[in-house]
Amino acid sequence: MRCQVLHIRVSWRELCQGVVRELIGSCLLIVVGCGSVLSANFSNPKVFNVTGVALCWGMMIASLAFTLECHMNPAVSFALASTGQIPLLTCALYIVAQCMGTTLGAQILVGFTPKKFTWSLGVTQLAKGVSPMQALGMEFISTFLLLLVVSAANDTSRGTSEQPGGTYMSTSLKSVSSNLVVGLCVSALILFFGPFTGASMNPARTFGPSFITGNWKNHWIYWLGPILGAFTGVVCYHFLFQTPQKSNTREP
Amino acid sequence: MRCQVLHIRVSWRELCQGVVRELIGSCLLIVVGCGSVLSANFSNPKVFNVTGVALCWGMMIASLAFTLECHMNPAVSFALASTGQIPLLTCALYIVAQCMGTTLGAQILVGFTPKKFTWSLGVTQLAKGVSPMQALGMEFISTFLLLLVVSAANDTSRGTSEQPGGTYMSTSLKSVSSNLVVGLCVSALILFFGPFTGASMNPARTFGPSFITGNWKNHWIYWLGPILGAFTGVVCYHFLFQTPQKSNTREP
Amino acid sequence: MRCQVLHIRVSWRELCQGVVRELIGSCLLIVVGCGSVLSANFSNPKVFNVTGVALCWGMMIASLAFTLECHMNPAVSFALASTGQIPLLTCALYIVAQCMGTTLGAQILVGFTPKKFTWSLGVTQLAKGVSPMQALGMEFISTFLLLLVVSAANDTSRGTSEQPGGTYMSTSLKSVSSNLVVGLCVSALILFFGPFTGASMNPARTFGPSFITGNWKNHWIYWLGPILGAFTGVVCYHFLFQTPQKSNTREP
Amino acid sequence: MRCQVLHIRVSWRELCQGVVRELIGSCLLIVVGCGSVLSANFSNPKVFNVTGVALCWGMMIASLAFTLECHMNPAVSFALASTGQIPLLTCALYIVAQCMGTTLGAQILVGFTPKKFTWSLGVTQLAKGVSPMQALGMEFISTFLLLLVVSAANDTSRGTSEQPGGTYMSTSLKSVSSNLVVGLCVSALILFFGPFTGASMNPARTFGPSFITGNWKNHWIYWLGPILGAFTGVVCYHFLFQTPQKSNTREP
Repeated sequence: MRCQVLHIRVSWRELCQGVVRELIGSCLLIVVGCGSVLSANFSNPKVFNVTGVALCWGMMIASLAFTLECHMNPAVSFALASTGQIPLLTCALYIVAQCMGTTLGAQILVGFTPKKFTWSLGVTQLAKGVSPMQALGMEFISTFLLLLVVSAANDTSRGTSEQPGGTYMSTSLKSVSSNLVVGLCVSALILFFGPFTGASMNPARTFGPSFITGNWKNHWIYWLGPILGAFTGVVCYHFLFQTPQKSNTREP
Repeated sequence: MRCQVLHIRVSWRELCQGVVRELIGSCLLIVVGCGSVLSANFSNPKVFNVTGVALCWGMMIASLAFTLECHMNPAVSFALASTGQIPLLTCALYIVAQCMGTTLGAQILVGFTPKKFTWSLGVTQLAKGVSPMQALGMEFISTFLLLLVVSAANDTSRGTSEQPGGTYMSTSLKSVSSNLVVGLCVSALILFFGPFTGASMNPARTFGPSFITGNWKNHWIYWLGPILGAFTGVVCYHFLFQTPQKSNTREP
Repeated sequence: MRCQVLHIRVSWRELCQGVVRELIGSCLLIVVGCGSVLSANFSNPKVFNVTGVALCWGMMIASLAFTLECHMNPAVSFALASTGQIPLLTCALYIVAQCMGTTLGAQILVGFTPKKFTWSLGVTQLAKGVSPMQALGMEFISTFLLLLVVSAANDTSRGTSEQPGGTYMSTSLKSVSSNLVVGLCVSALILFFGPFTGASMNPARTFGPSFITGNWKNHWIYWLGPILGAFTGVVCYHFLFQTPQKSNTREP
Repeated sequence: MRCQVLHIRVSWRELCQGVVRELIGSCLLIVVGCGSVLSANFSNPKVFNVTGVALCWGMMIASLAFTLECHMNPAVSFALASTGQIPLLTCALYIVAQCMGTTLGAQILVGFTPKKFTWSLGVTQLAKGVSPMQALGMEFISTFLLLLVVSAANDTSRGTSEQPGGTYMSTSLKSVSSNLVVGLCVSALILFFGPFTGASMNPARTFGPSFITGNWKNHWIYWLGPILGAFTGVVCYHFLFQTPQKSNTREP
């Protein structure tokens, strides 16, 4: 039996696979990504190595988005749903799966690491001297930029991809390159925003470690900023950066 | 209504989109790129992490040039105009948009970062012991090398791209790889020139932070060096490195 | 004369080439990878540079897997054999070759480096405070994630590759991208797990240096964890992340 | 007028272009590559940042080999000539151009950098405790590995390239990926061999700075090791790693 839950024809099996992929992807992202924060602190407590952490997050996002074809990010799912690229029900299920996945990942991380090095589990928080409004602006602009890049990587009118859909890419070749660009962009953004706000750009990434450590301070920033930024980014891309070929193809 | 402002047939809509893309691209480039300079200083004031900064600029240029198909660099726009790849009017509009974009970006950065860490906004300046002529030579040779790489990445006689034009690439697949090479080249150049001259290679990148901080010392170097270097690079590529297939195709 | 030792039709010559490739690949991987650990310790004993080491391993794995089309990893060979992608005899020969290769590599490394800097030959060991069960879990989850990525990179239903087989990729273009993703994933995983368990994910990588230095402490972890993780990863990918196109193609 | 100096049909114009490309490529490689060594020493004299230097060399080699389609390395030219991929005359002209280019590059670097930071111009030399035989072995094995990767990236039987030839790649798409693999491999090798021998893998890279600084100590190592290693690597690839498809195509 097949249904129209996604715009492209998918079976229930595929929807379930998608949700499980979001769950596992978000879980692994938190284990390795937040783990790299603990690791940087463990191997050299005095000089925090933000380069290593930024590369780790970027590479993990590129690898996991390529492998599991998942969003791992409620802001991305919401932005794609708001422009009709995935249906609302799928979006809701994905967001629940993402938050459960990051919570599971944070719990696994607690089990893996020696107690004295768990060090706040890599939860995103504001650096001293950064006001909540500045942090909101940073999360807004970083997710805005991220969604511009994701939209371009996802844009079927640009390249060789034949199947439009909610996942990042369709054919293997495109997917490697596209995901690499998204991953590099995340790494670059962390190299700026990381030391100031933790560079979440992802409500689920903040939710999991916050839930396990009980640190909910300024938590609203990491939902409002990324979701507003993601929505603005997708809309901006579609209205301002729409390539002319695309509109030509549509208007016969 | 369509006009011949660009060599390829473009509508006014496309020209406006191009200008807005330059504005947004330059703005975001400065926010994240100069932000990474502040961030490196914030997280570790004693050991400045030039590797992280170099990777951040390279990744941002690769991501933004892929996403927005923009130059973000008056030296690139000027060099392409001087060889007839984009018309002079487009070039002039792009350069104005780029300078406005970087100024806006620098202003946003002032708003985002805590006052005591704003630290000269990552404005490019000469290190102690570097003479203006040495800096001019460095900016010349780095932009020369950059434009060789941009010309090769842009060369439609080399690969699969079907549409010649003023943007870095046409098809999605080519664009990811080509922009990656340009980004990697920028990262490599910053790893050398960064600590000596700031490795601008881009007059607009220097203009924005200089305008906001009022630091105009040696500003002429960052216009003269990159523009001369870019022009020499494009001419050099076209006369010396022109691939024989290209000339064969032209001469029937 | 041709035999059916591999599922794809291969000659004895090809089997021998495969075994020699595993031997040389594993040897070179240990020489350069473990060498980078010694080098990081040599150039800066106080601040161990895990970023450099992680990038070195990832880049070497990408380069060697692309060049020699080899696994260099008993856990990968075993996982592919367990799902019928390579026959058991080939798998056994590969694993012997891999262990011999890493032992040879470790011996070469002893010859190359000045005595006082050989520093335990980069053998993987548990950091203080990490329990054997935690280390087992870390090796399990990192190899699990690695095999998810390898399976996706290897998945012929996804992309342009025409020849299924036991090697990582078939056509040149796919192979570069696919191996790059695998290499980036390894780098990311080392950035987390490196300081805690050494991030082996590869029994042969631990066997060689252990054999030469005689350090067999907790050696079982580096066989059990990766092999269980690799098997789970491959099974997981095939049952949960199987793309629907693949099953459609199979069921006429 | 056309001649058969290269196996593929080339005009004198193309041969001259090739020689000039080697000259400019080698010059720029030394300016930026050795410059990054000075820069690392300039920005942080206590903790030498080998990661940044390794990335810079790898990125420059990838960018320049893609842009100028040049070898920039006598060991590569010699190895390709010894297996008949380029004729001996071309090889000899290339080697002279490469040595002139690196000397010019080193001289430019002296002009660019403040006197007190020129710091031996990044000339490759043995670290304390490394014997000449160990250094010879290191240069041999690193160039051996490099030429395996170059041979694979160059192998027309593997991929989409239609034109065999002495340059690294023919079509744009292949060239970006192939050069990236070569560049990543060089970065990985420097991360190990850099602190011990300088990781030359390239006689011309050592010749230029040695000529300008007059430091000829152990200079023979940097010619003998890379040339032997390169020859062994190319032969090894052709006899042991030849893909079966290639031989099938040849034997009708």
